[in-house]
Amino acid sequence: MIDLRSDTVTKPTAEMRQLMAEAIVGDDVYGEDPTINELESYAANLFGKEKALFMTSGTQGNIAAILTHTRPGQEVIMDDESHVFLYEGAGASAFGGIQPRALRHNRGQIPIDDLEKAIRGKDIHFPETALIWLENSHNRSGGSILPLSYVREVHELAKAYNIPVHVDGARIFNAAVGSNTSVKEYAQCADTVQFCLSKGLGAPVGSILVGNETFIAHARKKRKMLGGGLRQSGVIAAPGLHGLKTGIHRLAEDHEHAKMLAKAVEDFTPCEVIHPVETNIVLIDTKESGKSASEWLALLNEKGVLAVAFAPTIIRLTTHLDISKDDIQSVITILKKLDV
Amino acid sequence: MIDLRSDTVTKPTAEMRQLMAEAIVGDDVYGEDPTINELESYAANLFGKEKALFMTSGTQGNIAAILTHTRPGQEVIMDDESHVFLYEGAGASAFGGIQPRALRHNRGQIPIDDLEKAIRGKDIHFPETALIWLENSHNRSGGSILPLSYVREVHELAKAYNIPVHVDGARIFNAAVGSNTSVKEYAQCADTVQFCLSKGLGAPVGSILVGNETFIAHARKKRKMLGGGLRQSGVIAAPGLHGLKTGIHRLAEDHEHAKMLAKAVEDFTPCEVIHPVETNIVLIDTKESGKSASEWLALLNEKGVLAVAFAPTIIRLTTHLDISKDDIQSVITILKKLDV
Amino acid sequence: MIDLRSDTVTKPTAEMRQLMAEAIVGDDVYGEDPTINELESYAANLFGKEKALFMTSGTQGNIAAILTHTRPGQEVIMDDESHVFLYEGAGASAFGGIQPRALRHNRGQIPIDDLEKAIRGKDIHFPETALIWLENSHNRSGGSILPLSYVREVHELAKAYNIPVHVDGARIFNAAVGSNTSVKEYAQCADTVQFCLSKGLGAPVGSILVGNETFIAHARKKRKMLGGGLRQSGVIAAPGLHGLKTGIHRLAEDHEHAKMLAKAVEDFTPCEVIHPVETNIVLIDTKESGKSASEWLALLNEKGVLAVAFAPTIIRLTTHLDISKDDIQSVITILKKLDV
Amino acid sequence: MIDLRSDTVTKPTAEMRQLMAEAIVGDDVYGEDPTINELESYAANLFGKEKALFMTSGTQGNIAAILTHTRPGQEVIMDDESHVFLYEGAGASAFGGIQPRALRHNRGQIPIDDLEKAIRGKDIHFPETALIWLENSHNRSGGSILPLSYVREVHELAKAYNIPVHVDGARIFNAAVGSNTSVKEYAQCADTVQFCLSKGLGAPVGSILVGNETFIAHARKKRKMLGGGLRQSGVIAAPGLHGLKTGIHRLAEDHEHAKMLAKAVEDFTPCEVIHPVETNIVLIDTKESGKSASEWLALLNEKGVLAVAFAPTIIRLTTHLDISKDDIQSVITILKKLDV
Repeated sequence: MIDLRSDTVTKPTAEMRQLMAEAIVGDDVYGEDPTINELESYAANLFGKEKALFMTSGTQGNIAAILTHTRPGQEVIMDDESHVFLYEGAGASAFGGIQPRALRHNRGQIPIDDLEKAIRGKDIHFPETALIWLENSHNRSGGSILPLSYVREVHELAKAYNIPVHVDGARIFNAAVGSNTSVKEYAQCADTVQFCLSKGLGAPVGSILVGNETFIAHARKKRKMLGGGLRQSGVIAAPGLHGLKTGIHRLAEDHEHAKMLAKAVEDFTPCEVIHPVETNIVLIDTKESGKSASEWLALLNEKGVLAVAFAPTIIRLTTHLDISKDDIQSVITILKKLDV
Repeated sequence: MIDLRSDTVTKPTAEMRQLMAEAIVGDDVYGEDPTINELESYAANLFGKEKALFMTSGTQGNIAAILTHTRPGQEVIMDDESHVFLYEGAGASAFGGIQPRALRHNRGQIPIDDLEKAIRGKDIHFPETALIWLENSHNRSGGSILPLSYVREVHELAKAYNIPVHVDGARIFNAAVGSNTSVKEYAQCADTVQFCLSKGLGAPVGSILVGNETFIAHARKKRKMLGGGLRQSGVIAAPGLHGLKTGIHRLAEDHEHAKMLAKAVEDFTPCEVIHPVETNIVLIDTKESGKSASEWLALLNEKGVLAVAFAPTIIRLTTHLDISKDDIQSVITILKKLDV
Repeated sequence: MIDLRSDTVTKPTAEMRQLMAEAIVGDDVYGEDPTINELESYAANLFGKEKALFMTSGTQGNIAAILTHTRPGQEVIMDDESHVFLYEGAGASAFGGIQPRALRHNRGQIPIDDLEKAIRGKDIHFPETALIWLENSHNRSGGSILPLSYVREVHELAKAYNIPVHVDGARIFNAAVGSNTSVKEYAQCADTVQFCLSKGLGAPVGSILVGNETFIAHARKKRKMLGGGLRQSGVIAAPGLHGLKTGIHRLAEDHEHAKMLAKAVEDFTPCEVIHPVETNIVLIDTKESGKSASEWLALLNEKGVLAVAFAPTIIRLTTHLDISKDDIQSVITILKKLDV
Repeated sequence: MIDLRSDTVTKPTAEMRQLMAEAIVGDDVYGEDPTINELESYAANLFGKEKALFMTSGTQGNIAAILTHTRPGQEVIMDDESHVFLYEGAGASAFGGIQPRALRHNRGQIPIDDLEKAIRGKDIHFPETALIWLENSHNRSGGSILPLSYVREVHELAKAYNIPVHVDGARIFNAAVGSNTSVKEYAQCADTVQFCLSKGLGAPVGSILVGNETFIAHARKKRKMLGGGLRQSGVIAAPGLHGLKTGIHRLAEDHEHAKMLAKAVEDFTPCEVIHPVETNIVLIDTKESGKSASEWLALLNEKGVLAVAFAPTIIRLTTHLDISKDDIQSVITILKKLDV
């Protein structure tokens, strides 16, 4: 099967497996795992932040960030299709008591005016605005990239109101590579960033949260409460560190592959690609084909291709480390031959 | 001063004060206050529900309803300008851990299609949809009325998905009188309704939550936790009961007054009334006058009229029990003479 | 019936009813109710604190204090029979996310050593200690009084660790009158105090929370979220203010009555009074009589006396404003005649 | 250094490392990791429960259990030195809104009478009792074992009141081996059990929660919200599965080692072993030596032995997979030679 469901499905490479087997480890609850420490130090440097903290998932990095930035009864401004709003079990409200102020967006970008209007004034009836949330790249918009200029503008506004900015950068390396921006430049426009080791970078498990020293010290406690304080976690840090050191530039291939897929969809099927492909995600509207998303999934599945539904007539294809150019050619051939 | 800030500013009438002084009371935590019991029984009958529960405010009725209908990590669908979303301190998230799914609306009506799309399917990533929330009349839309036909449609949809419906009916009597609908008809399309005794009905304090017996038993416990379990509360139930028995039909006057004000604004000022006036609220956009909302408030204040700002160029006027036709005529005269 | 169940059952006097009927009122959400403002100002002065805030119940004052003093995941040290731990629906945990650290006590006094040991050090595994909680007088210990010297010692310890102290003073006037201490002296040993207008003082509804200006401003917002922001609440503030001005010294009578009851129990029944009677509460162990608490309640009820059960063989009698010396004599006569 | 701080410090064996490198993996969020599936199935069978769920830590297993068993405002009965009460950051209250009802215990055993008295009746003032919590073996009592007969008695009581029982079995294999009981027998007396792969069994990371199918399905969602939904987690499941299959009986050695240490402490030092050693933990009171716990830690550290402080004059030694009999002999020699 050619698995295009998500970039989370990648399996660790032989090299990563070797690194796991050889990792020097210690008890990370005591701060004594050298591999974890190296990973966190490397990540902090890469993003130009004081400190980094290993998390077992992007969801954990996000909820720890919210628990650290906010208090119950406060508001977090986010776009209304952000991952944290749609796909994280409402943990921010359930565990953090925060109210999401979910605004309309255009390819992940909330208009600056709308952002400013949503910031609450001082009034006994109002929750305080405690955090502005961006997602980059933006999954529900087909992996669209938030341009550095936009992120800067948000950051300026946030500073003017003394509100911190968090970036859910689960796929920030895709955004960086796709826009020829460094993650450090992006990180300069945010107080905290969460990014995944387990997506494009191919590590089996893990995410990282970066921020200043005080923030990370508090987030470490929240992580412990969430059950994310691990013991000899160096064994999973090792492949993550490897991905971080060697896997970023490779993402350009995934983007190239995604564009090839998008072109083939446009050329050979009645379906429509609904967002310009900027990174490793292709969103396809199946409406014109007269078939639903689930019918398309079945059709593709039969030919050996896996994808996911995003809406009743939208499917998502995602390219990643385990998908070669040959795989892409195979999928294109399949699309060509499909008689729909 | 002619106080048009809100219908909450009404002062108890001489009759209400007399009733307070004479109320037969007991300890309501033990269920022994005859006046509270009479009020609750009367209210339940009026709305055609099994039981009613006295609350010290609309906010308390709303949060108790959420705490009773939902669990942390669930979602409540509401419109994105509802009072509970904008003005109740995010208590639903802070105390109840719920995530508001705030949707766009038209005069308080969320399109039925959007409502249905927002209901969550079964997936490990998703919060469950636990409640659908309506506000009737709808404050931010200038007191607009949700037609019975719309509320019915929502209720049908909700039943199909086995999701309860709550109505924030802080001003449901205005909606009922304004649309010639009975509150019982409205209540038949909802599992629970909260309504205020302290707005149009003129009572000094209090709201009521109605629902079935099990629901109210649970809500009673939530009310205790919120500190709303009172002792000899018959003294404040008495004027509420009086308002309920005698004050509903009178609201037609407030509506008439609001329409007179709206007409005067259109006739004598450069400002625009931005919603058809259906009940006791007039929303005025001041933009065309070249003046901001706060400038208008100052201008009116100087002439002895109080109003509130709803946005940088929007002010709200609200008519109520303490505003006579003479008061309205005075305001109209003031508007005529204003040289803006 | 002679109702000794609680001092919450008192009905407003004719004078209080008159004051309600004549109260000058306004909208307290706008801070415009003169009677509320007078009550709050009077209460703040009486306790020597900057500000006071009207609450609809002791439970509401307590939960608002916790929500203002603490954050989720912190610990509040309290005694393991405190009202907040046993009888407030676990609101502190449910709404505030706090962990009660409930310690053993002797008549409401937690040994200072135990208190100090329970204060948490800095460690990633530990909740922080955010508040020390006292209850004075102490209900479960038969209304026992915390001596000023003890409260001072607790306050010194708390200051040394930079931890605030809250006093649940639902019956602090009983403690003050019973120990010839002023409430101001008690309040000097605490950051915040909650006390009830509706118990010994005889008001139909209400409690007060006192503290410094910043604290009360935050607590006001929490009160709004709890639904405790009222409108023309002057109507219920008026009898509370009257109680506060005229009702404190009268409590000595209730204490005298309680002692008379206790003596009669010892003299004329096989039951045992299990705590020295210092205020208005008498706890009676029925074991020696061979009868359970509920059997005693039935027995007394038959003779026209109401009490409550505190445990399978413990009943509580409480004296209050509506119990005259004649009532006490009647109860004594009944006890004498009971053949148990 | 001979590290006796905790059994969490063990490093994965060569065999475990090999298994990690070779683990067959998939995306566990999609339920497609064969190694995780095998581990969960093996664990469920071992405990005689329908289902098992991999967790990244004991704390995560515990908080997920609480979130699944309870609702905010309910009470969990536990002993007042349990790990969940002292060392898990009050997550149960912070994220779950529950109130711990922490009772006195004797070597982890809460007297059955006290347990029964603590179960709440039905009353508007009371939190409901939602869960009874046991910890076996009991860390703060020096790894003491809850006898099967006691656990059965608790279970009978709980069933009579229709309250579920959860066992924090972080070290349940030590309890089982030390008392010649099977974990299945223990598990029959509980609705759910959490146990660690990372302590005595020597795995680098991980715990397991077992229960019935419905419970585990709900817990899986809670785990996702906590950020514990991992991707190719088979790489860390592999050593855990190995530990589970091969490491249980070996624990007898750790127990033997702990007893040798305890005897040496009694024989060669003025310190006192404060609990009979039943498993792999030795608690030592240093009072008689005139030295504090931290002085002892420094003394031992100087000689190459690491331990932890449990109280100002109590230190804990823990034996584990990485401590050989030779290591124990070395420590004994060190103790003999210490001149204190």
